[in-house]
Amino acid sequence: MQIEDVTMFQVIKKDMAALEDELLRAVSSPVPLLREMGTHLVRSGGKRLRPALYLLAARSGPAFEEARMMPLAVAIEIIHMASLVHDDVIDSADTRRGSPTANARWGNQVAILGGDYLFAQAFTLVSGRGYGEEIAVRLADLVRELTAGEILQDSSLYRAELSEAEYYQRIEKKTAHFLAICCEIGAISAQASAAVARGLYEYGHAIGMAFQLTDDLLDVTGDAAKLGKPAGHDIRQGVVTLPVIRALDQSPNRAELAAIVTDEGMTDAMVARALAIVRASDGVAYAQAKADEYLTQAKAVLPEAIPEAVRRAFIKAADYIGRRDF
Amino acid sequence: MQIEDVTMFQVIKKDMAALEDELLRAVSSPVPLLREMGTHLVRSGGKRLRPALYLLAARSGPAFEEARMMPLAVAIEIIHMASLVHDDVIDSADTRRGSPTANARWGNQVAILGGDYLFAQAFTLVSGRGYGEEIAVRLADLVRELTAGEILQDSSLYRAELSEAEYYQRIEKKTAHFLAICCEIGAISAQASAAVARGLYEYGHAIGMAFQLTDDLLDVTGDAAKLGKPAGHDIRQGVVTLPVIRALDQSPNRAELAAIVTDEGMTDAMVARALAIVRASDGVAYAQAKADEYLTQAKAVLPEAIPEAVRRAFIKAADYIGRRDF
Repeated sequence: MQIEDVTMFQVIKKDMAALEDELLRAVSSPVPLLREMGTHLVRSGGKRLRPALYLLAARSGPAFEEARMMPLAVAIEIIHMASLVHDDVIDSADTRRGSPTANARWGNQVAILGGDYLFAQAFTLVSGRGYGEEIAVRLADLVRELTAGEILQDSSLYRAELSEAEYYQRIEKKTAHFLAICCEIGAISAQASAAVARGLYEYGHAIGMAFQLTDDLLDVTGDAAKLGKPAGHDIRQGVVTLPVIRALDQSPNRAELAAIVTDEGMTDAMVARALAIVRASDGVAYAQAKADEYLTQAKAVLPEAIPEAVRRAFIKAADYIGRRDF
Repeated sequence: MQIEDVTMFQVIKKDMAALEDELLRAVSSPVPLLREMGTHLVRSGGKRLRPALYLLAARSGPAFEEARMMPLAVAIEIIHMASLVHDDVIDSADTRRGSPTANARWGNQVAILGGDYLFAQAFTLVSGRGYGEEIAVRLADLVRELTAGEILQDSSLYRAELSEAEYYQRIEKKTAHFLAICCEIGAISAQASAAVARGLYEYGHAIGMAFQLTDDLLDVTGDAAKLGKPAGHDIRQGVVTLPVIRALDQSPNRAELAAIVTDEGMTDAMVARALAIVRASDGVAYAQAKADEYLTQAKAVLPEAIPEAVRRAFIKAADYIGRRDF
């Protein structure tokens, strides 16, 4: 399911359809391997949540103009794509969204260099188009935070003593800042007021926190078929998320759970047992409550001074994030 | 040996000393692993040829101002550094310039993400500083060409039928375009005329071709101690360079050479035999003549309308590239 199918984004439905063609055009290259990889990545789909938020935010400003906004929407999705390509190399992942990953299909060399190419292509797309240097600053900042978040995550793998504060810091860098910047630069590029840009940044930040919390929750509670990966994937990879942190603090079986999540050689049976312990604790309800708090906050910080249709769509986006099960 | 020690760059000696401090500052990060990696990379040294060419070119324009030029010089070296970090992951290299590589020291995860962080940091450095969008366009273009060149190289490994034209296309993307852009944006950022910018681009392109030709020659003829890696490294990695292409065409032992360079499992003895065949052919003299042609061309295209001290330094840089043995 792509985000454009969801009624909340009716207001940008046409933009989202155009985005697919523009993405294909942007990943084209005279180098055959780069073109193949780019086309494969675009055709493998994705929720397109980041450019959708950007395009929605851009409709909050007086200078919205579809043709002028599109290259930045494309750049945003391409940055996301490049970052996933590198993540899949790091995780030695074979599939994503049911398609082979770039590293599985073309090897690590092409995937690493292809990811670099896509990052550079994103900066090409936004340079020399009159967006102003502010936009390039934000995009570069976004990539830095994103990679710093991934590095923080990698340096806290298989750690049972991770604090909630460390968890929030990590998901902020990894996800919330990205979504916040998408909303903020939408406002900036359409010349919305500084107050609107700030409000939309805060909105994006809050739904980003909720989005990652939900993602992490789904890894504990979700259905393997809908997720496209087995539940407990994070636990197996050593990524300690909020429901687990809470269970490590509260569960009567916390010692057993700690022994499993810190064991780099854990078996399938151990992952299943860890999931059972977390599900039996209040970790799921606790993380769900935090996600709900962020969604309530997201709606509260939405600026008043944006078109009503855009405002409604942002509210629906928040509801959708709270409801999603994939 | 760093380039700043070479008398040719006397004119930018002070800039080059300042560059080291600025590089250290630019790779600093609140994330400890990123800071450690960046500091290690800067301290491991390097010829700093690219920022040196940029700073020299910047002295060809009327608006040269050291403080204003420095962030772009830093960005250029950081892009080069990031690209080497990713190359070392791809090649599983353990050492570079006698120091452990980032992947050897911190693993592939940190090296891949750290490289991404450095690329983004380079774009942060040049955004919002009034260089104008033209500069960001060139830098992004540079990274795209660089990665495309690496991908071309990777897709032509262990191929005995590589043409000279394919070889030139590859080294143009991999090296010449980078050096050309360094010279060109130096001129642009110091508001030199379009003719000067164009001439310096062509100069950089020509010395870039010569630089890579020399690099490839040294892999055949060089001294392991000075190179910091055994001769024949390219042959072992499957990278077919001009002296080898020529020997594959002209040597009486070309069938034997072709059998070796296309064998992914070649032994040390086979590499030594391949080197002996290439050295006995006219491949070395042929590639040397091509490098010399490019250096002659580089000097010929140098614009007249630049300060005499800068012009002399550019001529010395060309001579230095022709002479280097490391």
